[in-house]
Amino acid sequence: MKLAICGLGKMGMNLALNLMEHGHEIVAFDLDENLVKEAASHGAIPASSLEDVASKFDEKRIIWMMVPAGDATESVFTQISSYLTADDIIIDGGNANYKDTIRRYETAKESGINYIDVGTSGGTEGARHGACTMVGGDEDVVKEAEQIFVDVSIENGYLYTGKSGSGHFVKMIHNGIEYGMMQAMGEGFDILEASPYDFNYEEIARVWNHGSVIRSWLMELMQDAFAADPNLDEIKGIVHASGEGKWTVETALEYEVAAPVIAMSLMARNRSLETDTFSGKVVASLRNQFGGHAVVSND
Amino acid sequence: MKLAICGLGKMGMNLALNLMEHGHEIVAFDLDENLVKEAASHGAIPASSLEDVASKFDEKRIIWMMVPAGDATESVFTQISSYLTADDIIIDGGNANYKDTIRRYETAKESGINYIDVGTSGGTEGARHGACTMVGGDEDVVKEAEQIFVDVSIENGYLYTGKSGSGHFVKMIHNGIEYGMMQAMGEGFDILEASPYDFNYEEIARVWNHGSVIRSWLMELMQDAFAADPNLDEIKGIVHASGEGKWTVETALEYEVAAPVIAMSLMARNRSLETDTFSGKVVASLRNQFGGHAVVSND
Repeated sequence: MKLAICGLGKMGMNLALNLMEHGHEIVAFDLDENLVKEAASHGAIPASSLEDVASKFDEKRIIWMMVPAGDATESVFTQISSYLTADDIIIDGGNANYKDTIRRYETAKESGINYIDVGTSGGTEGARHGACTMVGGDEDVVKEAEQIFVDVSIENGYLYTGKSGSGHFVKMIHNGIEYGMMQAMGEGFDILEASPYDFNYEEIARVWNHGSVIRSWLMELMQDAFAADPNLDEIKGIVHASGEGKWTVETALEYEVAAPVIAMSLMARNRSLETDTFSGKVVASLRNQFGGHAVVSND
Repeated sequence: MKLAICGLGKMGMNLALNLMEHGHEIVAFDLDENLVKEAASHGAIPASSLEDVASKFDEKRIIWMMVPAGDATESVFTQISSYLTADDIIIDGGNANYKDTIRRYETAKESGINYIDVGTSGGTEGARHGACTMVGGDEDVVKEAEQIFVDVSIENGYLYTGKSGSGHFVKMIHNGIEYGMMQAMGEGFDILEASPYDFNYEEIARVWNHGSVIRSWLMELMQDAFAADPNLDEIKGIVHASGEGKWTVETALEYEVAAPVIAMSLMARNRSLETDTFSGKVVASLRNQFGGHAVVSND
């Protein structure tokens, strides 16, 4: 099929290369001209603007947006929509909030434009050699474009999840689970590190990846990380979050579902951003007030 | 090598079959005579008592205990020790608390008996066809028996973890991480279930197992579980715990390590055992006291 990839970051570029390898014709666009040239050197049709992207199609346009969630997605969506006509298809492959996705689906529908949401997992390697895709939208529209998702995914790694927003919803929950799994691993290694034993963490991760109950891709990545930096001395334990964990917790709150571990994993990331906390100061000062317990002064 | 397996439950029996397949000579004992007969029918040397187990060896005895942690392990350890002589080796393959293991190691050492602790993961299938083993104890003793651990394990699934107790310590942390991973998955599916979308959980687990970041053996087991019971209607959400999660949290408390997710996973299991809570009654009655908020009466 012929489709455009708008956004040639690590994910977008790898998706473009992956899809071209599967015989698809790719129109490539990014604000960074060098990335467009790089895609073109691999056989993509270069486009110089979103308007130019739209002009590269003789028939029905399929536009895959692969840009960060939020303002960037909103900006590309608004601009590209103005150049599209009824029955064209926009695919959002980013990590958008599913509520924004449903809103964009409805906005697009007012002009007869179709909107598909794709939750994409597996990192940049997955994008290049076979991703995991969770795809929401009108069933007939998704079926029309389905070969794209099948080709970009690893075998059995594509699922039509249901109506608009469901692809990004499932991806959001995937990431929430990921937060919990990662935090559990972090805490486990933290206790090993605090123990009197002298463990080799790469070896521990290696043995856990061979036959244990917790064998997993994340533990394999941990094995690689410890192989490169045996005690992770080279980095700080600061963990940013990019939205999906927070949205998972917000969704749990909205549906009144108890999700303490995913919520706590997010809070642990928030805590990791601080070298000291106001809550700690409050509690220390209270202990001092009622019990005369020593406080640690700020230098 | 020649060794005895004491305890022919699902794990012990499968370990015995696995080891015999690798050419080891197995003395088999269990309080249940039928299990001893079953092991013997596969080629094991039957023993009628722990004393009889000890009598089946002409030279150095190697005794693998595969019984539940706690009283059963203590009982077998105490009894078998009385029939052993210096340089014999006891292997504890159960999920003992590592502090009990260190105590037993020291008790055995008083009689010159060697003690090895083996954390075993991978379930009954792993025991039969290749487990994951984390092995602690005196290095020279472990090296002497190493072929047993190599043969019983999947390739790369054996690790010498260090001095006595370290094998059970690493297995304990493994299980703590497992608690967190499982609870995160549970919460994620719970939010999916509460959502307005109509998801097929087997398909969700299937797509997550192909190329996603959270692909893992546990998610594969979830796929199997949903294949057999699509909405888990046949079971209740009651989750027991067998000790290792609690010990992980106790260890985190002892070392003053923050492990909120593993602790919360254990608390979630505790909560699952109750249909109502006294804490809920306390909070509901307080809301009623200060704000007149309605309470739900007991029928």
